[in-house]
Amino acid sequence: MKLTILGCYSATPRAFTNPTSQVLEIKNHLFLIDCGEGTQVQLRRHSVKFARIKHIFISHLHGDHFYGLPGLISTFVLLGREAPLEIYGPKGIKEAIILMLKLGKSRTNFPLIFHELSSEFSDCIFEDDKVEVYTVPLKHRVYTNGFVFREKPGERKLNAVAVQEYGIDKCYFRNIKSGKDVQLENGQVIPNAQLSFDPPAPKSYAFCSDTMYKPDIVPIIEKVDVLYHESTFLEEHQSLAETTRHSTAKQAAEIAEMAAVGKLILGHYSVRYSNLEWFREEAAAVFENVELADDGKVFVF
Amino acid sequence: MKLTILGCYSATPRAFTNPTSQVLEIKNHLFLIDCGEGTQVQLRRHSVKFARIKHIFISHLHGDHFYGLPGLISTFVLLGREAPLEIYGPKGIKEAIILMLKLGKSRTNFPLIFHELSSEFSDCIFEDDKVEVYTVPLKHRVYTNGFVFREKPGERKLNAVAVQEYGIDKCYFRNIKSGKDVQLENGQVIPNAQLSFDPPAPKSYAFCSDTMYKPDIVPIIEKVDVLYHESTFLEEHQSLAETTRHSTAKQAAEIAEMAAVGKLILGHYSVRYSNLEWFREEAAAVFENVELADDGKVFVF
Repeated sequence: MKLTILGCYSATPRAFTNPTSQVLEIKNHLFLIDCGEGTQVQLRRHSVKFARIKHIFISHLHGDHFYGLPGLISTFVLLGREAPLEIYGPKGIKEAIILMLKLGKSRTNFPLIFHELSSEFSDCIFEDDKVEVYTVPLKHRVYTNGFVFREKPGERKLNAVAVQEYGIDKCYFRNIKSGKDVQLENGQVIPNAQLSFDPPAPKSYAFCSDTMYKPDIVPIIEKVDVLYHESTFLEEHQSLAETTRHSTAKQAAEIAEMAAVGKLILGHYSVRYSNLEWFREEAAAVFENVELADDGKVFVF
Repeated sequence: MKLTILGCYSATPRAFTNPTSQVLEIKNHLFLIDCGEGTQVQLRRHSVKFARIKHIFISHLHGDHFYGLPGLISTFVLLGREAPLEIYGPKGIKEAIILMLKLGKSRTNFPLIFHELSSEFSDCIFEDDKVEVYTVPLKHRVYTNGFVFREKPGERKLNAVAVQEYGIDKCYFRNIKSGKDVQLENGQVIPNAQLSFDPPAPKSYAFCSDTMYKPDIVPIIEKVDVLYHESTFLEEHQSLAETTRHSTAKQAAEIAEMAAVGKLILGHYSVRYSNLEWFREEAAAVFENVELADDGKVFVF
C-alpha cells in the first residue's frame, strides 16, 4: 500500500498549501480520496498516472474536499478517456457534477457512474476479489463519511518442500493455496497447514476527515494498519473544534488508541498554527506512533 | 491601469501553469476577469487583496475559466466577508454557484448578486462615475463574452497661472474643471480652454477569450489601449483552431491591426507548443506591438 498526500490543509487556502486529497495505491487500484480545488494539478506535480484512477471517494461536499472534481472530470474528457469512472459520495454530488459539465456543453465519452451515499451506517460500497471499501459514518456540519480500505487475504503460500516430500501432484496446488486439505491415493489426509504457509497479513487503511470526536467509529476502524484522522485544532481550541465539528490532535490520538491502530497520521490543520510539530506532540502524549501528513508526503506500508 | 495575469494557459492543466484569470486595477476598482480552478491560490501568491474584489466577470462556462469561482466565494464566506459581490456571466452561472454552496450548507453573509448575460449584442453591463464595462460578443463552442473596460474622461486640470492672472475666485474652480467658461464681473467671458488643461486620456482594456476569429468585434474594441486576445494555436493548426473555435496568433494580430489598438497581449496557449516565442513572432509579422501573457506577469499602462 502506498499513500500519497496531495493536500492536507483545511479550508481557507494559502499560497503554498493544498486542500484535502490523497491517492491510495492498493492491490493495483489507484483510489482517489477527496478532491479539493487544485487536485488535478497536484496529481501532475506528483506524477500520479491520472488515467489509472477508476474510483473516487468523496467524504463530504465542502469545497475543500470536492471543488476539484468538476475540473478533474473535464480534464478526463479533454484527454479522451474511455474507461469508466466511478464516484462515491454524498447525495447531491451527481447533480452538481452533471450541471457543471452541462453548462460547458461537455459530454463524457466514458461511463460516469455515481454511487450516492446517504446511509448512517457503515456499508460495504466497493468489493472485488482483492479489496473491500467500507464507509465510516462521521459527524461534521454536513453529511460525511470516512472510508476503510481493506485488502482481502491473499492466497496461502505453497510449502514447496512439504509438497515434494508427500509427492503431491501439481493439479492439487490451486486447492492447497485456497486452504484445502489433500487426500493422498492411500486415503491419508494431509492437513493444509502442513502444505502451505499463511499469506502476508492483509493491510488496511482508514481515512476519517472531516469529523468531530466520534468514538463510535472505533469498532469500524479497529486494528487498521494506518488511520488518517483529521486534527484541525489543538486542545487549546477544543471548544472551537466542537462548534465547527472538527477534532483536536488529542482527540484523534484517543480514537487511534481506542481502535488500537498501527499508525496514526494527522492532517487537515487549521492555518492558525505556525508550527505543525505541536500537533505531533499533543497526539504523541496519547498515542505514540503518530506522523504528520504534509502535501506531497508519501507513506508506504 | 494595472493588469495582473493570474493564469493564461488553455484547458488541460500542467504542473506549473494556470488556467485563465486576470485582475484589472482601474480607477480604484479591482475587477476579476475569469476564474479558472486555482484562482484563489494565485490571488494569494500574487498578494492581491482579495477583499477589494467587488465585481467578477466570467467570459464563459468552460471549466478553465470558471471552476475556481465556487471556491473563491466559499473562501469569502469563511473570511466573514460582508461587502456585496457582483458576478457577471452567462445564464446558468447562478444556478451552478448556488447549488455548489447549498451542497456544503454554506450561506453567504454578504449580498451575492448575479447579472446573467444572454444578449448577442454589446451591452453596457457596469457603469459608475469613473468606469464603464461593455460586453464583446464572441464566438466559441458555448455562449461567450469578452469585456471592454473604459475609464471615463476625468476632470479638466486647472490652469493655476491663468486663473490667478484673471483673478478668478475659488468658487468657480469646480465649474472650470467640469469644462465651463467663466464670465468675469465686467462681463468678459473667458473660454474654458484658457483656464484649464485637457485631462489625461482615459485608458481602455479589452479582454477577448475564448473566441474564434471574429472580425465583427473590431468596432467594439476599436482603439483600446490594450487588447488581450486569445491565441490558442499557431497558423499551422489553423484548421484545428476553426474546429475548436479558437484563434491563431496571426488571427489575433489581424484583429489588433484592424481595431488599431495600442498593444496586443496574447494568451490561452495550447500546451502543445514548447516555445511561446513562436506566438509572438507569428503575431508580430502582422501587428508589431505585441507581448506575451504569462502567469504572474503584470502590465501597467
